[in-house]
Amino acid sequence: VFKHLGIYGAGQLGAFLCQAARKLDLETTVIAAQADDTATSFADHVIIAPLDDMQATHELLAACDVVTFELEAVPPDVLRELERQNAAGKVRVAPAAKDLLLIQNKHSQKCWLQDQGFPTAPFIDCSSDVTAAEAAEQVGLPFVQKTHRGGYDGRGVQIVRDTGASTPFWPGATIAEQFIEPKREVAVLVARSSVGELALYPALEMEFDPVGNLVRYVVAPAPLSSDIAQQAARLSADVVVAMNGVGLFAVELFVTPQGQVLVNEIAPRVHNSGHLTIEANATSQYEQHIRAIVGLPLGSTEQLKPACMVNILNEPDLAGAVPLAEPGMKRLNSSTYLHWYGKAPTKPLRKMGHMTCLAETLDLARAQCDDAMASLAAQKGELA
Amino acid sequence: VFKHLGIYGAGQLGAFLCQAARKLDLETTVIAAQADDTATSFADHVIIAPLDDMQATHELLAACDVVTFELEAVPPDVLRELERQNAAGKVRVAPAAKDLLLIQNKHSQKCWLQDQGFPTAPFIDCSSDVTAAEAAEQVGLPFVQKTHRGGYDGRGVQIVRDTGASTPFWPGATIAEQFIEPKREVAVLVARSSVGELALYPALEMEFDPVGNLVRYVVAPAPLSSDIAQQAARLSADVVVAMNGVGLFAVELFVTPQGQVLVNEIAPRVHNSGHLTIEANATSQYEQHIRAIVGLPLGSTEQLKPACMVNILNEPDLAGAVPLAEPGMKRLNSSTYLHWYGKAPTKPLRKMGHMTCLAETLDLARAQCDDAMASLAAQKGELA
Repeated sequence: VFKHLGIYGAGQLGAFLCQAARKLDLETTVIAAQADDTATSFADHVIIAPLDDMQATHELLAACDVVTFELEAVPPDVLRELERQNAAGKVRVAPAAKDLLLIQNKHSQKCWLQDQGFPTAPFIDCSSDVTAAEAAEQVGLPFVQKTHRGGYDGRGVQIVRDTGASTPFWPGATIAEQFIEPKREVAVLVARSSVGELALYPALEMEFDPVGNLVRYVVAPAPLSSDIAQQAARLSADVVVAMNGVGLFAVELFVTPQGQVLVNEIAPRVHNSGHLTIEANATSQYEQHIRAIVGLPLGSTEQLKPACMVNILNEPDLAGAVPLAEPGMKRLNSSTYLHWYGKAPTKPLRKMGHMTCLAETLDLARAQCDDAMASLAAQKGELA
Repeated sequence: VFKHLGIYGAGQLGAFLCQAARKLDLETTVIAAQADDTATSFADHVIIAPLDDMQATHELLAACDVVTFELEAVPPDVLRELERQNAAGKVRVAPAAKDLLLIQNKHSQKCWLQDQGFPTAPFIDCSSDVTAAEAAEQVGLPFVQKTHRGGYDGRGVQIVRDTGASTPFWPGATIAEQFIEPKREVAVLVARSSVGELALYPALEMEFDPVGNLVRYVVAPAPLSSDIAQQAARLSADVVVAMNGVGLFAVELFVTPQGQVLVNEIAPRVHNSGHLTIEANATSQYEQHIRAIVGLPLGSTEQLKPACMVNILNEPDLAGAVPLAEPGMKRLNSSTYLHWYGKAPTKPLRKMGHMTCLAETLDLARAQCDDAMASLAAQKGELA
């Protein structure tokens, strides 16, 4: 029986993991870059250190019997040390370090998807002197250029529309991927436990804001035909099984106007698109992740009501709004839940919190989110 | 969306499937050998015919959009016809006909387990003139002789203790398997859905009656160390995944005194050891099976309380007892459930019904079962 969970990273995902761990009677330690990171308010113990501080890793390993991640950008030498300790039976590390190593490099991730025969947009590697014109010849125009490493929340990704000077082609290790104009972008959360249980959440639809390439709304269940929903579910399950993954994985998919389902990317961790599972599903993605990695039976993924989540970004409308004095959740009414991360508004569009609304239909849930956001903007911080 | 479930076989397992189907809004048709088979009281439509009546199969296929089995002994030519109709997209058949074909032959089942690398007792095929002495030389004495086909509830299985005349060695197609004196015989119910979800029930322990080689009691969760429980769970999950199985499967296992876990047999269907899931678990094995084959999200397998089930057999004590006028369930008190199958007591030790008790501990649940059985014997039919 595991007693102490260590978590790399201390943002809102880590905070929600700490809350779920408490429910399951696990002590928590997080490695946080900053003393005021969101999860520091929810963890039992905090190690303040950058992720590449090997001393911090040894401190974490000394305290914990199971270790996980709220983000995939953990330095490779730290991951290799975790793999060694896991192989030696000193600690359980899940998901496996090899999965993070694979996924944190977008080129290796695409190669793996292709090798395994999963449908994904065509791409070429641009590491060695491939020019924009050569990339365009291979995958067409426009195309998406992605850096091998370090992409996150819209960073490290650009759309190249012509091979002239309007979008400078990035040098260095990148891939060029055929541009898919999807009808929908959906994510399927897949939990797979250390004994092989596998549970799927109903597909989530992500709606991206054109500015900043950030998710604005997430709704669930995604409005898909039952045929497409089954394809998406099966493909996502197959991806996680092929990876022999343990833990919660978010499989991001494109649904094309022609009804094809393509894998876009895999996140080997709880996902910002899954916040609404806290209120909308019988078991949240956070609790499910912990159940999966410590070998507890998986909980029901049943969705209780249609749900909409809206991200609260640092924008002019809301600049300086502090609706809650402390990071945490406030139930604004019987079916509207405000989560506030307590982060400093250090940069435009930073995720400051989110709101989840449950209703009888997706349209009603979304309207309720919009109303609640409007009153948040009108009251600027007076909710606290 | 599936609307009409066809079931081969109409005993108590079929009856419980019909009840679960009603809950999920599916119409049911069963093929019953006799007009008074238990499930005929619970199905919406009944076809009275032997299983090998191809006309009955065509009648079933005309009515149903999804077809399943309460037993594996469906004739191969019927299975091949179902496979054709399934491949043609005219009906969904689950589990797959190939799984039943594999499993209904104990020799092919053992070969498959061995080929897949799953731990199972050593055996040899005795189809071609192998004598008892040769079998004993290969697998030791005593050994278990099993007919390739037709074994069920203790039939087609014998223990050979010496190569003399005391136990006549059966001629014909049989296997001889090393005799394992298990510390425990357990079963793990594994549900796997058409999209790849996989759910495990806590292991059940089966206690066999020495007379008749029949299960007398089943308790859950089986009292296993967490290490053995994990081994059993993982092995069972792996077996069903390796088979690419869809539906509920019961994986029967031996736990040896040395702590080895061996696969004994696979049942590609709901299982008599799983009756207690009706009251003890959030989702019964019957509902779960239907969810799995029609592609609904799997339900939670959580066990609410320790449980004991006792089979009510046709024995001198209870001969002629008819505790309920009709087949069905009666709650005897807040945690004791009597299920009566309404079968004629045609032969000794026939399963007439079962009783499930929930309590705070396995010992209390078992004591409660024994008390309830004693009053059933004392009252002989007066409960009705």
